[in-house]
Amino acid sequence: MKNLIVKMLLALLLFTNAAFAADQLPSWNDSNTKQSIFAFVQRVTTPGGKDFVSAPERIAVFDNDGTLWSEQPRYFQAFFIFDRIKQLAPHHPEWKTKEPFASVLKGDVKSALAGGEHALIEMAMAAQTGMTTEEFGKIVRDWIARAKHPKTGRLYTEMVFQPMLELLAYLRANGFKTFIVSGGGIEFMRPWTEQVYGIPPEQVIGSSIKTKFEIRDGQPVLARLPEMDFIDDKAGKPVGIQMHIGRRPIAAFGNSDGDLQMLQWTAAGKGSRFCLYVHHTDAKREFAYDRKSSIGRLDKGLDEAQAKGWTVVDMKKDWKRVFPIPKNE
Amino acid sequence: MKNLIVKMLLALLLFTNAAFAADQLPSWNDSNTKQSIFAFVQRVTTPGGKDFVSAPERIAVFDNDGTLWSEQPRYFQAFFIFDRIKQLAPHHPEWKTKEPFASVLKGDVKSALAGGEHALIEMAMAAQTGMTTEEFGKIVRDWIARAKHPKTGRLYTEMVFQPMLELLAYLRANGFKTFIVSGGGIEFMRPWTEQVYGIPPEQVIGSSIKTKFEIRDGQPVLARLPEMDFIDDKAGKPVGIQMHIGRRPIAAFGNSDGDLQMLQWTAAGKGSRFCLYVHHTDAKREFAYDRKSSIGRLDKGLDEAQAKGWTVVDMKKDWKRVFPIPKNE
Repeated sequence: MKNLIVKMLLALLLFTNAAFAADQLPSWNDSNTKQSIFAFVQRVTTPGGKDFVSAPERIAVFDNDGTLWSEQPRYFQAFFIFDRIKQLAPHHPEWKTKEPFASVLKGDVKSALAGGEHALIEMAMAAQTGMTTEEFGKIVRDWIARAKHPKTGRLYTEMVFQPMLELLAYLRANGFKTFIVSGGGIEFMRPWTEQVYGIPPEQVIGSSIKTKFEIRDGQPVLARLPEMDFIDDKAGKPVGIQMHIGRRPIAAFGNSDGDLQMLQWTAAGKGSRFCLYVHHTDAKREFAYDRKSSIGRLDKGLDEAQAKGWTVVDMKKDWKRVFPIPKNE
Repeated sequence: MKNLIVKMLLALLLFTNAAFAADQLPSWNDSNTKQSIFAFVQRVTTPGGKDFVSAPERIAVFDNDGTLWSEQPRYFQAFFIFDRIKQLAPHHPEWKTKEPFASVLKGDVKSALAGGEHALIEMAMAAQTGMTTEEFGKIVRDWIARAKHPKTGRLYTEMVFQPMLELLAYLRANGFKTFIVSGGGIEFMRPWTEQVYGIPPEQVIGSSIKTKFEIRDGQPVLARLPEMDFIDDKAGKPVGIQMHIGRRPIAAFGNSDGDLQMLQWTAAGKGSRFCLYVHHTDAKREFAYDRKSSIGRLDKGLDEAQAKGWTVVDMKKDWKRVFPIPKNE
């Protein structure tokens, strides 16, 4: 009899938790996708359960571009780089005739990118190095506060995904530590991720250039050097995770083949694991792309998700709204 | 009248806080050193005060060797490397005649180190790479659980400084996030820092080798490569802090010239800052060394601390006890 009462109370508790969890994801339609999220959280947070994971081990990693905010028609950091090049042009008269800069200044992005990775890195270095880390932080903060997306006319920070903001908060409310693991520049994200995602700088992992400690006019500074240090993409993501976190995540969230190794690394740990892909299926409210896209291609990852039973978000079906401030939705 | 009462209440509150703080550092003698610590904590945690710092910005960084545990007669990781070389010797018959390994196997550490940095790195790579990150974690855990210090006969984790453990806990109780920033190997520390210092792996910064993501027998692994990635010492410490934390600490704790740039970087930030050097002055209870020591040399740092009014711990005078389990004290 006593056992029965305990079991009934436990069942009630689980039900209450589940209902509470559902409430915490109000922008998610009721679906298998949503159920899979809170079933996982319940498994790893139920004390005494066979899948229980202690709070310090509840590490969740999120890609940024295409997972927490949009990434079309190009990665937002590319717009930042182009804007910076235009801003710096008066100090570089030689850019008028020098590619890839000349094309950027003419507004011909396609030609600017024709030089491939080499041209891209040349632009990234010209736009993002040479100053101190503090100066760069200010440049990013100023840009993100006013720059507008060329298609939507919105601030870039308005193009974050409301359902993912809720998911981040829900996981943190359940004792998870949330990290960004992005191919984007680590110092391009840090100035605004705490305010926008609730993720502090020390939980942001990204690609980086080398810096050098120097004393300038009696003040110590970190100078940003025009030299790549680490590329946090594809097989680099598990490397970046180990370097910065030092333990394996139990949950990973991505949207492209560039996140596949991060999801594989997460899935291969012992115990209960959760892997999720955001599938961009909503051309009306956001963008629709997958296997053929040059940006955020989701091809091998989609196959592996289906083969392994990972959760795949169908943005069109699973999300009640996409952005915090709906527009044309 | 009302103002007076408020002032009296505030004074009482400050006094109570101070008394409480003092209690939380029971292994510290009452001295200017101890007073300087809790005066700083009070300044940055008093809401409305001019030096108030919000909790997320309360970043405190600690060197490890010589600051949180002993480092004589050599860095403890050197003992680990020598032990590993002896353990691996049966698989490397060539080491019997090849330096620096031959000298290590004969127990002649001085000759082994005669080859300088090159020999040291060769030994470090032979002992600490070639396996996966998970395998290396297990090797470190096994070693730290049983290896004994050659002079004290104690476990290395028994040679941590009790006053510093109290300081770590006191800062955390006041909303600080505590990080290790050490020249030692990042993966040599992470397997035990959470248990010993209460510092989780993601808050450990150290020197590192490169790793590579691979699929082995269908399982993803991170292989440890025999190639240096980052040296987290001297001017590397502010670089490591920026790379991992992404904001400037407000408090820094070290014991050698290798920590000087970290303290300079911390001190140069705006607002109230705290820099502390542990000065090893106690030959009886621990070790006494400073300006002339080849390990943990404190020379330029001591001059700068005196010039800038940083706090310097005199271990002999300021600490009631050194280790958690006193022995010959």
